[in-house]
Amino acid sequence: MTVTIGTSVPTATEASAQIRAGTLSPVELTETVLARIDRLDPIIESYVDVYAEDARAQALQAEAAVRRGDRLGPLHGIPVALKDLYDMASRPTLCGSAVRDGHCADEDSAVTSLLRAAGAILIGKTVTHEFAFGVVSAPTRNPWDINTIPGGSSGGSAAAMSAGLCLAAMGTDTGGSIRIPAGLTGLVGLKPTFGRVSKRGVAPLSWSLDHTGPITRTVADAALVFQSIAGYDPADPDAVDAPETDVLAGLDGGAAGLRIGVPTNFFFDAVTPEVGDAVHAALEVLAGAGATLVDVAVPDVELTAELVATIVGVEAALIHQEEMRSRSQDYTEDTRHRLAGGALIAGTAYVDALHRRRCVAAGLRAAMSDVDVLATPTLPVTAPPYGSAPGEVMPVLSRLTAPLNAAGLPALALPCGFGSNGLPISLQLVGRPFDEATVLRAGHAFQQRTDWHTKQPPLTN
Amino acid sequence: MTVTIGTSVPTATEASAQIRAGTLSPVELTETVLARIDRLDPIIESYVDVYAEDARAQALQAEAAVRRGDRLGPLHGIPVALKDLYDMASRPTLCGSAVRDGHCADEDSAVTSLLRAAGAILIGKTVTHEFAFGVVSAPTRNPWDINTIPGGSSGGSAAAMSAGLCLAAMGTDTGGSIRIPAGLTGLVGLKPTFGRVSKRGVAPLSWSLDHTGPITRTVADAALVFQSIAGYDPADPDAVDAPETDVLAGLDGGAAGLRIGVPTNFFFDAVTPEVGDAVHAALEVLAGAGATLVDVAVPDVELTAELVATIVGVEAALIHQEEMRSRSQDYTEDTRHRLAGGALIAGTAYVDALHRRRCVAAGLRAAMSDVDVLATPTLPVTAPPYGSAPGEVMPVLSRLTAPLNAAGLPALALPCGFGSNGLPISLQLVGRPFDEATVLRAGHAFQQRTDWHTKQPPLTN
Repeated sequence: MTVTIGTSVPTATEASAQIRAGTLSPVELTETVLARIDRLDPIIESYVDVYAEDARAQALQAEAAVRRGDRLGPLHGIPVALKDLYDMASRPTLCGSAVRDGHCADEDSAVTSLLRAAGAILIGKTVTHEFAFGVVSAPTRNPWDINTIPGGSSGGSAAAMSAGLCLAAMGTDTGGSIRIPAGLTGLVGLKPTFGRVSKRGVAPLSWSLDHTGPITRTVADAALVFQSIAGYDPADPDAVDAPETDVLAGLDGGAAGLRIGVPTNFFFDAVTPEVGDAVHAALEVLAGAGATLVDVAVPDVELTAELVATIVGVEAALIHQEEMRSRSQDYTEDTRHRLAGGALIAGTAYVDALHRRRCVAAGLRAAMSDVDVLATPTLPVTAPPYGSAPGEVMPVLSRLTAPLNAAGLPALALPCGFGSNGLPISLQLVGRPFDEATVLRAGHAFQQRTDWHTKQPPLTN
Repeated sequence: MTVTIGTSVPTATEASAQIRAGTLSPVELTETVLARIDRLDPIIESYVDVYAEDARAQALQAEAAVRRGDRLGPLHGIPVALKDLYDMASRPTLCGSAVRDGHCADEDSAVTSLLRAAGAILIGKTVTHEFAFGVVSAPTRNPWDINTIPGGSSGGSAAAMSAGLCLAAMGTDTGGSIRIPAGLTGLVGLKPTFGRVSKRGVAPLSWSLDHTGPITRTVADAALVFQSIAGYDPADPDAVDAPETDVLAGLDGGAAGLRIGVPTNFFFDAVTPEVGDAVHAALEVLAGAGATLVDVAVPDVELTAELVATIVGVEAALIHQEEMRSRSQDYTEDTRHRLAGGALIAGTAYVDALHRRRCVAAGLRAAMSDVDVLATPTLPVTAPPYGSAPGEVMPVLSRLTAPLNAAGLPALALPCGFGSNGLPISLQLVGRPFDEATVLRAGHAFQQRTDWHTKQPPLTN
């Protein structure tokens, strides 16, 4: 069976403009999305729960507001999905785990609340790898080839976006969990700077590495969502009170004059030839737009995998300490083993990992001292087969994304080609701390000159 | 035997002015200090090593510079002692441990080098509790009563200062190791804000809690030394690039208009009545100088002791991991047991301690939200008996100082009275982050109205 998804769902930026202009009805848009979910999600399995009635009610209100000529938020009438780690008042946050059976959130997460304030229609919750501790997101399938995985842990959000089952989706990213699924499904994923977007009300995996951010069709859409959710939250202990920037204002600034660093070590070492070729071709596009490519070394980046595993292991073990004592049998075997292993890691090993993390951060700082942006592949490979063992795909898929969690730098994944198997290949653009604006500007310039982001997945059974 | 030390050693501030004016010879000052060391240090045992010949050579150079009319540093010609954790080029840094036998430093610590640049004469190295992991500083005796301890871990620096065997001394402070011995020996001790003074080249005990700072006779002297050593050091990974302030410029600003918070919980709960009375009397002095006393609650401060023990235990165990594997027999039994214990602490317990540390820091931030300075006793008691067991005195002596290590806030100890046993009692003034200036101004205002800091210890055998 082959189902062609078609192009019936606009980008969030297009929809926002059309809703403002009165040429697109939020009610019709929501009904279209709900109908696509009905038709396609039985195959994709990207949603945990769809709030159809609530979404319809919000759409009616959104439409009435347009008719009244109310001042509209930037996401007014746009259906947005939340990874099922984000709290929504009076709804369960199940985190992909039987441990959360019977859960019900008291209030919205900070991001949920900011999305509501921006006018978004919160259409449902998407599949996450259990407590975000993996990159498979079973049972969700990759719309580009349902015999492959969408990656994770924000696999449901990416698969839903890729299949046109929402217009933007929220993910979380501890070692790559926004960028990995975005990369495997031909989408844009933005991991903002650590501390830039609130994590209040989002189930943690690893406090010091977790980030919240959007998965979207285009870079412009990522900028639109980021602008709606970024900002200092004194109630989030990891939040940083950095100056806010208007990423939309500078989005059309182009790539002319940008200095783009291209790593001479690590980031291209273990990628397939067609991934390397596609990323180098993308760099030529940016050079053609006036950017200067600069070879840079990235010292100590190879320390990342082990230190991130140690930090996540320890922090996740502490987060789940009580549940592991009282109901360990409710975790899947894989997660239970990882949490039990994390509890055995010594404090000295954790502190040693923090020190190596400083080395990785300093190495990336040095690499970026003379460039505006660093460009790398997002992933060494295209989507692995459905049924892949979590422990096997984790080190491969997170290899190129996790260094930016260790360093807390903003990082954007965006599509830049296809493998011979027809599966998406992804470019990663990395910025300086709190300089999401430049990363988004560079990514948008790339998408102005290419059409990879307009490709739609054939849904093949 | 009673030896009266007398008043033959001026304060650093007095000496600095007299040397500039040509009325005090650096050579004579150095010889006076060396003679006092010869006479008194066999009793006090505060110095590990005295660099008499080097000091004499530096003093001759200092004198020549005065005669030439050279531009002089703020500590020109002033004999200063270093705790034996500070590296000095071509000298051993023994850290009070047989583990360091045969050590020789390649270069000066950052502070050593800044003191030299300020014109200080580096007269010798002082006793530290082994690797700063305790508050006893055997074999050093307290000049106020040689049957008591000077405290620690900077006990040698405090005892040397108290007996007039130098004009300023450097200490380190992880849970109170500058303020505790300063308090027990009637001196001033300043723990600056975390990250304000470089720790490069100073043997660490616990990276995230260690601070470097001075022990002096007066608050003005502490300001003089602080001004010479404060500043961002990019080579110290814990350094913070905060705006520099001229603490000397505002030192005479007085206490009028200052809002001084007086804790209603914890800080006065477990102190002896005469400590409480002396500190309250000191507060009345500040009120008499125009300060407003404000009762404040300090939430969560009682969490400190356990979290600091966990953090120090883990970090010290990592720092000493290699030596504990290769030559554990060279540590004293007490230190060996503590390091072995630290290596057994789980990563989850360490991260949990970091979280409780955030609570303590937030509690102190809340307590200081409406005041300029917080005032507390430095210590619950006066100096314990010589021979006290390290494990017994540690929790008592560090109870009121360690919260400021957890929070990283600037804290100043200064003498404010005597117990019925004739031993010094100490006031602690705490400031907002990087606001050493206000703490020093308040402390100086207190010393302008009192004479506790002018009292000299009778050296009783």
